[in-house]
Amino acid sequence: MSAVFPPSEYQARVSAAQARMNDAGLGAILLTTEPDIRYFTGYLTRFWESPSRPWFLVVPASGAPVAVIPSIGAALMGRTWISDIRTWSAPEPADDGVTLLASTLRELVSDGKVGVPSGYESHLRMPLTDYDRVKAASGLTFTDDRGIVATLRMVKSPAEVDKIEAVCAIAGRAFGRVGEIAHEGVPLSQVFRDFQRLLLEEGADWVPYLAGGAGQDGYGDVISPAGDTPLVPGDVLMLDTGAVRDGYFCDYDRNYAVSHASQATKDGHARLIEATQAGLETARVGARASDVWRAMADIVGGGEGAGRLGHGLGMQLTEGLSLTSKDHTILQEGMVITLEPGVETGDGTLMVHEENIVIEADGPRMLSPMAAADIPLI
Amino acid sequence: MSAVFPPSEYQARVSAAQARMNDAGLGAILLTTEPDIRYFTGYLTRFWESPSRPWFLVVPASGAPVAVIPSIGAALMGRTWISDIRTWSAPEPADDGVTLLASTLRELVSDGKVGVPSGYESHLRMPLTDYDRVKAASGLTFTDDRGIVATLRMVKSPAEVDKIEAVCAIAGRAFGRVGEIAHEGVPLSQVFRDFQRLLLEEGADWVPYLAGGAGQDGYGDVISPAGDTPLVPGDVLMLDTGAVRDGYFCDYDRNYAVSHASQATKDGHARLIEATQAGLETARVGARASDVWRAMADIVGGGEGAGRLGHGLGMQLTEGLSLTSKDHTILQEGMVITLEPGVETGDGTLMVHEENIVIEADGPRMLSPMAAADIPLI
Repeated sequence: MSAVFPPSEYQARVSAAQARMNDAGLGAILLTTEPDIRYFTGYLTRFWESPSRPWFLVVPASGAPVAVIPSIGAALMGRTWISDIRTWSAPEPADDGVTLLASTLRELVSDGKVGVPSGYESHLRMPLTDYDRVKAASGLTFTDDRGIVATLRMVKSPAEVDKIEAVCAIAGRAFGRVGEIAHEGVPLSQVFRDFQRLLLEEGADWVPYLAGGAGQDGYGDVISPAGDTPLVPGDVLMLDTGAVRDGYFCDYDRNYAVSHASQATKDGHARLIEATQAGLETARVGARASDVWRAMADIVGGGEGAGRLGHGLGMQLTEGLSLTSKDHTILQEGMVITLEPGVETGDGTLMVHEENIVIEADGPRMLSPMAAADIPLI
Repeated sequence: MSAVFPPSEYQARVSAAQARMNDAGLGAILLTTEPDIRYFTGYLTRFWESPSRPWFLVVPASGAPVAVIPSIGAALMGRTWISDIRTWSAPEPADDGVTLLASTLRELVSDGKVGVPSGYESHLRMPLTDYDRVKAASGLTFTDDRGIVATLRMVKSPAEVDKIEAVCAIAGRAFGRVGEIAHEGVPLSQVFRDFQRLLLEEGADWVPYLAGGAGQDGYGDVISPAGDTPLVPGDVLMLDTGAVRDGYFCDYDRNYAVSHASQATKDGHARLIEATQAGLETARVGARASDVWRAMADIVGGGEGAGRLGHGLGMQLTEGLSLTSKDHTILQEGMVITLEPGVETGDGTLMVHEENIVIEADGPRMLSPMAAADIPLI
């Protein structure tokens, strides 16, 4: 009832993981982070914002996953498809789930090692001292999960693609209303607040990410908080959002020219759209991430210095592959990625554009509404 | 310019850490998480939402901290007080900052171990395989940080208290407007969206946390996402928010009765306020966290089963001490905590109330506007 998808969706994910675990000699995979645990359970809550309690899911090489969680989460986990839920009263300074997790692992792992996501983009969401205690108390051998969870998560099911498409549509409606909130004289910080409001009005559950910038012909970087400087004519305003609906992200941006656009701004925007189109044409099953990067880098220039020009997307704002010269991941049907070229527009200023697409058997399909080459005026 | 506080604030924090590091025989502390790095630098960005890049700060036993970060963050870090900023072009699959971090540690640590936050509420925000590589490449010995960073962060400076008070005031204004958005017939999911909108309108930079519930005489749990069931007369609506301004959280809630309140609802609310007042009277310099818990637990009942009835608050929604029977942390001037009693109002229903306070030399001071005993009607 409370999960986003029917049990069959999660069961299929577990089965896919278990096939790979058996090949890799893993007796179980131990998960500690929000997206990894949600991927196999459907457990969706904003309570992860609190760092005070660790949460564990054990996916054994055969049989159903077991949740080892603080008792405060039992009711909600009980409304997912998971039936074996073991709880302790966290926070418990002397033993914060350590003994319960270790005994659960001992029970479930008769053969093989315990795999823990340990590679790119992963982290262990529990105190290191407690992790050492779990390892010692279980008597088992721990190793990385061979990238099994990250690899599975890279390819989205049709149900997942639908969720990402839905939140892309929400953001699209909010972007269409930017003229209501942003114009000459409005401080960027106010634009940021109001744009989050528009996203909520259009149906976002929450807005974990909003970045952007504003300046003449471009902006200095794309990760700084908004200042209180008002927009002035000739500014390029960029808003880049990771909004969430049902636990899935969109991640794309739009640029706007305030009152009027300089030729440099117009040219920069047109080049970004040209690069995005080139990336789109390349983003087909069998192409490498680096091929898509190359198609865009050839247009925006900068060579290696162009950096990352897109990435995977789904339960996290960024996940999976990177569109760089060095990531040779082969595109597969069901991968959802962003195309995110950037171009220098002056000394210390840049413009960035971003769209979201899904790789399908017969080619890529836009999930965000592709922007036109002409930068819109506000 | 871009940091929230003047350099002297951050320098004082570094000095305090270094005094403790010398006592503990640590040659440096290695930090990897958003709040820990921000605590010593002022580096504030929502870009942490992306898990794709690791970020490092090394605080040596003497001298200034050194940031070892992806080049995409160089411009923003350059606007903090940190001057030694070393970057690499992340993500770099072959060596994602490992060599740069290891060499930086070797350079800065002439004597002593490298402390890494490893205790309660901590995690290491980098892949475990890369952490092992850094340890090997540096040739240094790694250990926990003896709780130095968590202990320092527990006691807020006056400037920090001002920030928390400011965001508490923002939430107070939003709570005062709940009657505009919530009444009979409105789905809870819509109330959640609209309340986030109110928080933004009242000045929140963003809303990392919103929880709550609604039901006759109370709600089933306090961490579930909102469903689409409309509010009906007799429902108790609870909204609990962690809104952020300038990187500091509030964390408190309000209960409302929809159209009318049953006697059980009225009694439950009055008892929660009574318990909160009892906690407030106990929350003085020198008292233990467990003393404050006891004062509230004696009123709401449940004994040990009452669970955690409050916690520290600041750069994270929850941080530092816990108001439980087992946490005997001594309250100090400058600690900011929540008082969060809960009471059972029926079979499977509860009500929870929460306020935010700062411990001052002559007693506690409310940061959130203390609620009245009578539950408000909407």
